Amino acid sequence: MNKQKNLYLLALIFISACSQNESVGNNSEAEDQKTFNWRLVTAWPKNYPGLGMAPERIANLVEEMSNGQMKITVYGAGEQVPAFGVFDAVSSGSHQMGHSGGYFWKGKAPAAQFFTGVPFGLTADEINAWTNRGGGLELWREVYEPFNIYPIPAGNTGTQMFGWFNKEINSLEDVRGLKMRIPGIGGEVLKRAGGIPVTLPGGELFTALQTGVIDATEWVGPYNDLTFGFHQAAKYYYYPGWHEPGSMLELLINKDQWEALPKHLQVIIDTAAKAVNQDILDEYTARNNRALRELVDVHGVELRKLPDDVIAEFKVIANDILEENAAKDPTVNKVYQSYKKFKEEVSAYHKVSEDAFVEARND
Amino acid sequence: MNKQKNLYLLALIFISACSQNESVGNNSEAEDQKTFNWRLVTAWPKNYPGLGMAPERIANLVEEMSNGQMKITVYGAGEQVPAFGVFDAVSSGSHQMGHSGGYFWKGKAPAAQFFTGVPFGLTADEINAWTNRGGGLELWREVYEPFNIYPIPAGNTGTQMFGWFNKEINSLEDVRGLKMRIPGIGGEVLKRAGGIPVTLPGGELFTALQTGVIDATEWVGPYNDLTFGFHQAAKYYYYPGWHEPGSMLELLINKDQWEALPKHLQVIIDTAAKAVNQDILDEYTARNNRALRELVDVHGVELRKLPDDVIAEFKVIANDILEENAAKDPTVNKVYQSYKKFKEEVSAYHKVSEDAFVEARND
Repeated sequence: MNKQKNLYLLALIFISACSQNESVGNNSEAEDQKTFNWRLVTAWPKNYPGLGMAPERIANLVEEMSNGQMKITVYGAGEQVPAFGVFDAVSSGSHQMGHSGGYFWKGKAPAAQFFTGVPFGLTADEINAWTNRGGGLELWREVYEPFNIYPIPAGNTGTQMFGWFNKEINSLEDVRGLKMRIPGIGGEVLKRAGGIPVTLPGGELFTALQTGVIDATEWVGPYNDLTFGFHQAAKYYYYPGWHEPGSMLELLINKDQWEALPKHLQVIIDTAAKAVNQDILDEYTARNNRALRELVDVHGVELRKLPDDVIAEFKVIANDILEENAAKDPTVNKVYQSYKKFKEEVSAYHKVSEDAFVEARND
Repeated sequence: MNKQKNLYLLALIFISACSQNESVGNNSEAEDQKTFNWRLVTAWPKNYPGLGMAPERIANLVEEMSNGQMKITVYGAGEQVPAFGVFDAVSSGSHQMGHSGGYFWKGKAPAAQFFTGVPFGLTADEINAWTNRGGGLELWREVYEPFNIYPIPAGNTGTQMFGWFNKEINSLEDVRGLKMRIPGIGGEVLKRAGGIPVTLPGGELFTALQTGVIDATEWVGPYNDLTFGFHQAAKYYYYPGWHEPGSMLELLINKDQWEALPKHLQVIIDTAAKAVNQDILDEYTARNNRALRELVDVHGVELRKLPDDVIAEFKVIANDILEENAAKDPTVNKVYQSYKKFKEEVSAYHKVSEDAFVEARND
């Protein structure tokens, strides 16, 4: 029933968009000055720090730049649709916009994961470069096209932490039987290494950790993790975040409604999202260190590095899984080949540029 | 004479800006719909790839987002003012906008260098975070305020290469007497290590290298260097670019004329510059590797790493120079203390996040 209704609405919107274009033409004055009130649903709690503020900032910029012509109202997860209902809401056109992470939609579009990030993949700068200047964006739009969704990059967390643990990880042996909340390909890697990946929403993690339902959880990084209070429920904070090296967030737009917008509003939305994409990374980059120091110095958290042989094993497994997934699905394979080639090239260059510099600076 | 004329023009502009504000008020319809035709002068050759395209892209975005209300015409170096005349042109108001690098203006404002980058300093992501979320932007605006200039970050080259050499650098001994084109604090470091820093505009570097007037030159990185043909005039290509770890470019705006703009056009300019700031880095990140491979594989360039003891000595000297400069000038000191503290904090965090990840990925 809902689907039928949505299809009907979609058809109406489509017809109305077409007739607008026909009757007034592009960039006519009437079309250009029409006002727009759009609704944006998110996969995050309302006003959640860092990534959750990306849609609010995009909405503010769009309203200011359009001088009030376009107003976007942002709804937190659960206010109008549940967190994992964002993709369908934008696809059906019940809501014009959404903000989320592509890897949430791997059940619908398995290739979507590459547009957030994959284990041992691209860092923030690298995924930006692949998306905007290396062919990634065109592939992303192709992957979401059957869902009538137009995606734009809109935020990045930078390299995450591996997460919070109540068990020490000194060897691969310690991974066996480990119950950890870790979604996506990271979870598949843990499973193949003998662990037990668990899926739980963010709001339930603290209690699950404290009561021993799970032994460990990943989340984002110090700036976000501190506000969730994980240090009161777990002893060890492990790095590096091999599973999420530079997670990119997404602004989802219903494609029919996007195409019916006057050109200047399209450029305003696209540019606002680009500016916020960097702004969110800037915020994490600026705030994570102080939060980490507070966790370690004030709350006595033990910061630990994952042993090299555990990381090496995870890397082998992650690579196997990526290759197997690509062999199963031509769309996944197409995106994977582009991502993999870009990673080989960009990491070769970064070895003689930023990586070599950072090593010299830190020595 | 010219200065007086400029002051007179400035006064006129200021009065006219004030009277506009008084007569029509902020955001009145008349004020909001007034059209603007601005001129932007740059320190780069017209349509120079990478950094030189930043002002063109900003101009396009502003025109599209404002739906034609604001038009910016971009002039290459020498078309209306020489490369190093950009700061004065914007300061006087003869041109409303400029695009350049802050370290060009160290003679006028010694603290300006920190807003491009300093040896062994912040990488691209780090300088973005310091500027936008760590207090850097407020300091930058304070430093340029006496010149009536309002700066906005507008592009980043990423970590540069150390440059092109016709002499091998195997030890500190080889640096003595080395004639190298290297501007700014990098040049001061070379001088104190026994080398001879030379200042030459980009267009003269090829001939100077080929005729032996200089032994070496730094420029940007493979993507830009390939187009200049340096591989035909030098044997060795050295890394890492310790002297320019993530050079940020600047959009300069005459402050009086900025303040007289309607609010929505201010936000449009600011957001366009933010989007282009990332776009230019994306372009370098995506293009540098292929250019480097072409240099090495097709043109037989020898890629070399600077010896560790040479880098270590440069780092000690760079640190001494930064401390000495700060002791001489309270404004430099204020900016330096903010930059230094941010660098300590962000590099500590990056050691357990992105750096640790990259090490794990590349092992």
